[in-house]
Amino acid sequence: MDQHARLEAEASLADRYAALRAGTERLAEPLSPEDQCVQSMPDASPAKWHRAHTTWFFETFVLKPHVEGYQGFDPDFAFLFNSYYLAAGPRHARPRRGMLTRPATARVTAYRQHVDQAMTALLAGPMSPEIATLVELGLRHEEQHQELLLTDALHLMAQNPLNPAMDPAWREATPPPAMLRWLDGPSGVVAVGHDGEGFAFDNEAPRHRVFLEPFAIADRPVSNAEWMEFVADGGYRTASLWMSEGWAQCEAEGWQAPEHWEPRDGAWLGFTPGGLGTLHPDAPVRHISWYEADAYARWAGCRLPTEQEWEVSSALPGFLAAEGHVWQWTGSAYRPYPGFRPWAGAVGEYNGKFMIGQMVLRGGSRATPPGHSRQTYRNFFPPGARWQFTGLRLAKDVA
Amino acid sequence: MDQHARLEAEASLADRYAALRAGTERLAEPLSPEDQCVQSMPDASPAKWHRAHTTWFFETFVLKPHVEGYQGFDPDFAFLFNSYYLAAGPRHARPRRGMLTRPATARVTAYRQHVDQAMTALLAGPMSPEIATLVELGLRHEEQHQELLLTDALHLMAQNPLNPAMDPAWREATPPPAMLRWLDGPSGVVAVGHDGEGFAFDNEAPRHRVFLEPFAIADRPVSNAEWMEFVADGGYRTASLWMSEGWAQCEAEGWQAPEHWEPRDGAWLGFTPGGLGTLHPDAPVRHISWYEADAYARWAGCRLPTEQEWEVSSALPGFLAAEGHVWQWTGSAYRPYPGFRPWAGAVGEYNGKFMIGQMVLRGGSRATPPGHSRQTYRNFFPPGARWQFTGLRLAKDVA
Amino acid sequence: MDQHARLEAEASLADRYAALRAGTERLAEPLSPEDQCVQSMPDASPAKWHRAHTTWFFETFVLKPHVEGYQGFDPDFAFLFNSYYLAAGPRHARPRRGMLTRPATARVTAYRQHVDQAMTALLAGPMSPEIATLVELGLRHEEQHQELLLTDALHLMAQNPLNPAMDPAWREATPPPAMLRWLDGPSGVVAVGHDGEGFAFDNEAPRHRVFLEPFAIADRPVSNAEWMEFVADGGYRTASLWMSEGWAQCEAEGWQAPEHWEPRDGAWLGFTPGGLGTLHPDAPVRHISWYEADAYARWAGCRLPTEQEWEVSSALPGFLAAEGHVWQWTGSAYRPYPGFRPWAGAVGEYNGKFMIGQMVLRGGSRATPPGHSRQTYRNFFPPGARWQFTGLRLAKDVA
Amino acid sequence: MDQHARLEAEASLADRYAALRAGTERLAEPLSPEDQCVQSMPDASPAKWHRAHTTWFFETFVLKPHVEGYQGFDPDFAFLFNSYYLAAGPRHARPRRGMLTRPATARVTAYRQHVDQAMTALLAGPMSPEIATLVELGLRHEEQHQELLLTDALHLMAQNPLNPAMDPAWREATPPPAMLRWLDGPSGVVAVGHDGEGFAFDNEAPRHRVFLEPFAIADRPVSNAEWMEFVADGGYRTASLWMSEGWAQCEAEGWQAPEHWEPRDGAWLGFTPGGLGTLHPDAPVRHISWYEADAYARWAGCRLPTEQEWEVSSALPGFLAAEGHVWQWTGSAYRPYPGFRPWAGAVGEYNGKFMIGQMVLRGGSRATPPGHSRQTYRNFFPPGARWQFTGLRLAKDVA
Repeated sequence: MDQHARLEAEASLADRYAALRAGTERLAEPLSPEDQCVQSMPDASPAKWHRAHTTWFFETFVLKPHVEGYQGFDPDFAFLFNSYYLAAGPRHARPRRGMLTRPATARVTAYRQHVDQAMTALLAGPMSPEIATLVELGLRHEEQHQELLLTDALHLMAQNPLNPAMDPAWREATPPPAMLRWLDGPSGVVAVGHDGEGFAFDNEAPRHRVFLEPFAIADRPVSNAEWMEFVADGGYRTASLWMSEGWAQCEAEGWQAPEHWEPRDGAWLGFTPGGLGTLHPDAPVRHISWYEADAYARWAGCRLPTEQEWEVSSALPGFLAAEGHVWQWTGSAYRPYPGFRPWAGAVGEYNGKFMIGQMVLRGGSRATPPGHSRQTYRNFFPPGARWQFTGLRLAKDVA
Repeated sequence: MDQHARLEAEASLADRYAALRAGTERLAEPLSPEDQCVQSMPDASPAKWHRAHTTWFFETFVLKPHVEGYQGFDPDFAFLFNSYYLAAGPRHARPRRGMLTRPATARVTAYRQHVDQAMTALLAGPMSPEIATLVELGLRHEEQHQELLLTDALHLMAQNPLNPAMDPAWREATPPPAMLRWLDGPSGVVAVGHDGEGFAFDNEAPRHRVFLEPFAIADRPVSNAEWMEFVADGGYRTASLWMSEGWAQCEAEGWQAPEHWEPRDGAWLGFTPGGLGTLHPDAPVRHISWYEADAYARWAGCRLPTEQEWEVSSALPGFLAAEGHVWQWTGSAYRPYPGFRPWAGAVGEYNGKFMIGQMVLRGGSRATPPGHSRQTYRNFFPPGARWQFTGLRLAKDVA
Repeated sequence: MDQHARLEAEASLADRYAALRAGTERLAEPLSPEDQCVQSMPDASPAKWHRAHTTWFFETFVLKPHVEGYQGFDPDFAFLFNSYYLAAGPRHARPRRGMLTRPATARVTAYRQHVDQAMTALLAGPMSPEIATLVELGLRHEEQHQELLLTDALHLMAQNPLNPAMDPAWREATPPPAMLRWLDGPSGVVAVGHDGEGFAFDNEAPRHRVFLEPFAIADRPVSNAEWMEFVADGGYRTASLWMSEGWAQCEAEGWQAPEHWEPRDGAWLGFTPGGLGTLHPDAPVRHISWYEADAYARWAGCRLPTEQEWEVSSALPGFLAAEGHVWQWTGSAYRPYPGFRPWAGAVGEYNGKFMIGQMVLRGGSRATPPGHSRQTYRNFFPPGARWQFTGLRLAKDVA
Repeated sequence: MDQHARLEAEASLADRYAALRAGTERLAEPLSPEDQCVQSMPDASPAKWHRAHTTWFFETFVLKPHVEGYQGFDPDFAFLFNSYYLAAGPRHARPRRGMLTRPATARVTAYRQHVDQAMTALLAGPMSPEIATLVELGLRHEEQHQELLLTDALHLMAQNPLNPAMDPAWREATPPPAMLRWLDGPSGVVAVGHDGEGFAFDNEAPRHRVFLEPFAIADRPVSNAEWMEFVADGGYRTASLWMSEGWAQCEAEGWQAPEHWEPRDGAWLGFTPGGLGTLHPDAPVRHISWYEADAYARWAGCRLPTEQEWEVSSALPGFLAAEGHVWQWTGSAYRPYPGFRPWAGAVGEYNGKFMIGQMVLRGGSRATPPGHSRQTYRNFFPPGARWQFTGLRLAKDVA
C-alpha cells in the first residue's frame, strides 16, 4: 500500500468527497464559460458537462434512491446529464453535448453546490455499506472525469489557431535522462486481476491465473527523444511497420508526429495545458494512438507488452512510471476476464458494454488524479484515439 | 422615399454608425458568453463571431487603408474574422468558427470599442466620397449580420431540448385576419433594378428592362393558418407536389412542418426568439425552404412569382408585407442582371461569387433592421435553407 | 425545316421506330455484358438498364394501356426499369441499378424484341393521335437515352486504369481552324420557346416574349486550344475567377483540366469513346462543368449567354455548331417558362420536377442523335456535372 | 490425421493443384460474366477478381521469381490483381475492383490457363522445398478465396430484388435434431497453436502454453430454431444484451434477424446460394455478426468461448461441427501469439498486418473447401461482418 493509498484509507469518505469535488472545480477554474461549453469532437465532452454529469451520478445513484426527502435540483438534468446509462432513462445525444449553452456555467455550479450540500449531510452520519460503495464509486468516477475534463479541454484548445494555454500554471515533468534497461518478466503460471481488497472497478476482477511465456519488459516508457528518432527515420512514411488499418488512418489524416506536436523551424514543439512549448527529450512521449505505438515497437524490433505482462512486471524493482507519467498501450484487446460479472443494477453498464473494439492501457498519466490508478487498473480506448495522455513501453520475447 | 429612408437621409453617418453599432450590442445582450460562442451548424455563425466580423469589416476596409496611424487591435483578428474575402488574405475555416472559445466575448467587446473609437473620430471630420461609400457599405453589411445573428442564435436555441427563449422580451406580430386578394401585376416591358439613387448593393444594378406576360399576385404572404391546411391535407406526404430533389430532402430529413414548428397535443407550436408559443393564424408562415414554398404553391394551384413580378408589383396599392414581415421566396434563381458589374476591389466579392445554386427572396422580415431592405433588394439562400425568416407569396398566370 | 427534319417527317412512325431501336442496339454492340452491367457512379446508369428502361417506357405508356391483349414480358420489370415515375409505381433505387447482374444482357435483348414485335404490329395499323403522340415521345425519350448510354459508358471506361476504348470505330471531329467572330444578337422584345409545330418537350413551351438588352455572342464554341490557354494561365488555380461553390468543388476534387483530359509528357490527351488520344486544337472543348465554363468566361472578360440570347441568335448567319458538336452551358437556371404546363398523366413527371438546381444547356453534341435537338431545345444538368459532352460559347454585353 | 488430410498427403502437389484450380472454375461456372464482375460492397470482391487474383499469386510468388524464361501473361495484371501486398508494388484500389469490366471474363479464363500451363510444367519436375512451400501456400490461399468467392457472390445476389439463385444445384444441410449438451473443457496449463507438422498459416504458430480456468462448452453450434427464440423474445430490441457499439450498428442498420433472413407471412426464410427457402430448424444459424453472437450468448446466460477454449475442446468426444458447418465466433480478439513471426518476404503481409480490430472465428463452414481448416486454424473478421457463413457456439464458466 503506497502512501497515497494509506492516506486515503485513513481519510473519511466525507473528507475525500470534499477534496475530490473541490479538485474538479480547481481544474475547471481557468476555463471561461465558453471554454466549458464547446465540444471539439464527438468523442470529447465540454467541461461544463463533465462537471454536471459527475454531479448527476451522485444525485441519481446515491441521493435519489437513498436519501428520503431529497429534492432534485432540476428535473431536466436527468435527461441532459445522463451519459450512457440505459437503465437510468433516455439521454441527450453524446455528439450534441456542445449545443447546451444553457443551463449556463453558473447554474451548473449551483447544481454542484446543491448536491454537495445533500451529500455532505449524508456523509456526516452513519451509512450502509451499500451506500458507501456507491459513494466510493462516485468518487472514482469523478476522478476519471477529471482526467477527461483536462484532455478534452486540451483538445479544444488545440483547435484554436491562437494556441491558447488552458492553464498557464501547468508545468511539464523534466525527468533526468535514463538509459533504457530490460527487466526479466515473471513467467509461467501467474495471477492477475484485483484480489478484492480495497476499491477496484468490476473489470479488474476476478483475480485469475494466466500462463506467460518468457519475456522481457522495458523499465520505462519510450521518451520524446526516442520518438523523434522514429519520426526522423521515416516511421510515419513506412507502411510495412504499420497495421493495415492503422496505415489507412495515418494516410487519411496525414499523421506525421504525435497529436499536439507542431513543427516549428525544423524542430517539434508540443502543445500542453500550459501552451505551446519545447518537448522535454526524456519525458515519456504521449498523444499517440495504439497504431503508432504498435508501429514504433515493430520499428524498434520489439512488441507491446500484454496487459498481463505489464501487470506482473509492475512490482519489479526498476519498473519506472507505473503511474503518474503516461498511460501505456498494451498489446491486449479489452475483453472480460474469465469469470467477469458486471456490477448489479444500472452501474453494471459502467464498463462491461465497452468490451469490444478497444485496447487496454496500463499505468496512469500526469493528468490522472493521484491514487486513482493501480497495478490492476484497466484503462481502454479505441486504437485510433490520440487525444489522451497515451504512450507506450516496449517488451520482447525471450528465447 | 418612406419615412425611415427620410430619417436616415437626414441623419449624419456618425449618428447612424453609433445607432447601428449599439443595435448590434442590444441584440447580443440577452445572449450569454456560451450562447455567443457555439456554432450550431456549418451554415450558422456564433454571435460573437458576427460581432467581431462586422467590426473587422470596418477595420479592414475603412480604418487600415484610410486612417493614417490607425493601430490594429490584434494582428490575429485579420485571420480569425475574415469571412470569405480572398483578397483580404487567408481566413479561419467557416465550419470551425465555433471552436473559437478564445478570444473571449469580453475581448470582442473591447475590439468593438477600439474600432468604434477610431471610427467615431473619423466620422467626426470631413471625408472623401470613397470613404463615405465604404462606411455606408459597412453599415448595410452589419445590418445584414444583425438578422443573421438573430436567426443563427435562434437555430442554436432550437438544438437545446429545454427550448430556451433567447430573448424573453421578443413579441410576435398579431395581425388581423385578412382575406387573400389577387392584384393584377404590371405586364409588358417594365424596368427593374436599382436606379442609382441612394444606397444599393451591386447585385441590384443595373436597372434594365424585362418583358412580363400577364400575371396576378397575392396581396399578402401565405399565413400560418393556410399552411396548416397544407400540412393537414398531406402536403408533406405527397411526392407529386414536390420538385424531385426537394422531395428527397423532405424524406431524408423527415420534414412534417416548417422548421421550428413542434407538435404538442395535436396542435402546432412555434419556436421563436421569445420561446415556444402558439402560432398566430394570420401571421405569415416562416422557416420554410424554397422546396416547401414551391410545393405549397403547386398544391394551391398557383406558382411563386418571379423576382421581377414581385418587384414591379410591390408598389401596387394593396400589396401588403413588402417589408418587415417575412422574406418571400420567388421563382427566380439568383443570377446577375444584364450588365452586372461587381464593385471594384475586395468588396467585389460581396455578392457576385454566390450567384449560383441560390434562389432570390424579396421583402424583408421582422428580423430585418428597419430601412435595410427595399423594393429592389435581392436576398438569396439555397433552396433547402429553412432557418431564416422565410415565407412565400403566391402568383399565377393570367390567360 | 432542315434536311433531317424533312426526312423524319416523311418517314412513317413504323420506320422511325425500327431505325431508332436498331440504333440503340448498334450503340451497345461494342459493349460486353460486363460493360453493360456496371454502374460507375450514382448519376450514371448501366447500358443494359438504358436498353431495358427505354423498352419499359413503350411497354408501360403505349402497349399496356392501349393494346388489348398485350402480354407483359415479365412482371418484375415494372419495378426494375421504372426510372422515376411515381405515378407508374414503386421502383428500384437509382444508385443500385448496377447491382442488377440479372436479368442478363441476353434477357434484356429478348425484352426488346418482345416489345418491338408488339410495337411493330401496333404501328402497322392506324392509330389514334393520342397513341401516336406517346410513340413519338417514346422515340424522343430513347434518343435522349442513346446519348446517356454513350456518356455513361464512357465514364465507366474512364474508371479503368487500362483506358479501354469502348468503341474502337469512334472518330473525333477534326474541324478547320476558325477565328472567333462576334455576332450582334437580336435585342428588344423577342419571342422564344416552341411554337407548337412538330414535336417538342413540354419544357420548351409555351412560346412567349422576353426583353433582351443589347448583346453580342460568339459565332462558335470555345475550342480545345483556347481552353489550354486558360489552363496554362492558371485558370484552375485562380479562385477569383470562380463562383464560391465552384471553387470549393474544384479544390475538393483536384480539378486541373476538363474531365477525361490526362496529362502525358507535358501535354494533354483526351479520353474518348475511341480511347485515349490527342485533342484536336480546333474542336470544341467538352467535359467541363458549368463552374468551369463560367470561370473561363470571366477569365476571357466575357460571360455565358442566357438561354434566350442563345436561342434568338441561333438562326443568325455565322452561328456555328448550333447542334451536333457540343452542348453549350448557358447562364440560365432551368426554370419553367411563363405559362408552363406539364403534360397530363404520368409523363408529366418527364421534365417538370427537375426545374431546380440545374443550368440550361443549348445546342447538341456529337453524341446526340441527329435531328434530336432543335433551337428551342432545353437540356439541363447540375452545375458540377462534367461527364456529358458539355462545352460553352461566349457572350458579352454591348454598351 | 483425418481421411482428407491422409488423401491430401498422398496426392502429389501436381494433382492437388489441378484439382484445386478446377474447383474454383466449377464454383464460378454458374455465374454469368455480369455476376462475376460487379462488386456489391467495398468488403466484397467480384468473382472474376478472385479468379484472377489467385492466379496472380502463383504468377507473382512462384513463376516470375523461380521459373526462368517464364513469360508474364499481361504486364497490367500485376497492378490490377494485387490485393494488398505492398512489397509486390502498387495496386488497384480495393473498393474499385468492380469497375474492371475489362479485362473480360474470358480473358481471365485465358490468364488462368496460361498460368496453369506453366505451373503444370513446373510441378511435373522436381522442385526445391522453398518452391514447394510457396505452391502449398498458393493452394491454401486459393482455397480461402473459394469461400470468399461464394460468400461475395451470395451477397451480390442478395442485393437483387429478384432473389436469384446463384447456384440452383446448391443444397443446404438437413441435420437431425440434437439436444445441446455441455462438455467439460480441459483446463489448467494447456498447449495451443500449430505444432509444425503439415501446413499451417503463420498466425497459427508457435505452439505455446496458456492457462485456462475451468469452463464448459456446448457440443454443437446454436441452431436456427434457437436463434428464432432469441428473435421472438425481442433480442434485437433489448439494448442491455448488446455491446454499446453493436447496439449502435443494430439500430443504425435496422437489424431484426441474421443477414439473408427475410420475413414472409410471419415466418423467416433464408437466402442461400440455392435461392430463397425455408430455414432448417436444426441447422446452425449463420450470417450473424460478432455483436449478435455476443448478445445471444448473454441472452442465454452464457458467453462465447475463447479461441483457446475452443481449440483444446475441439478434440473432445461429442464436439460436433468442428468443421464443415459454420464458422464460430469466439470471444478472442485476433492478436499475435507469443513468439509470432510473420513469414519472410512479401508473403509476410499475408496475416500479420490485420491483427487489430478483428475477432477470431474457429471451425469452418459448408463453404469452406474440405480439408482447408483444422483445429488450430484462425479465421478472423471485424465484429460487424455478417456476410460470411458465421455462427456461434456457447460456453460458460464453471465455478
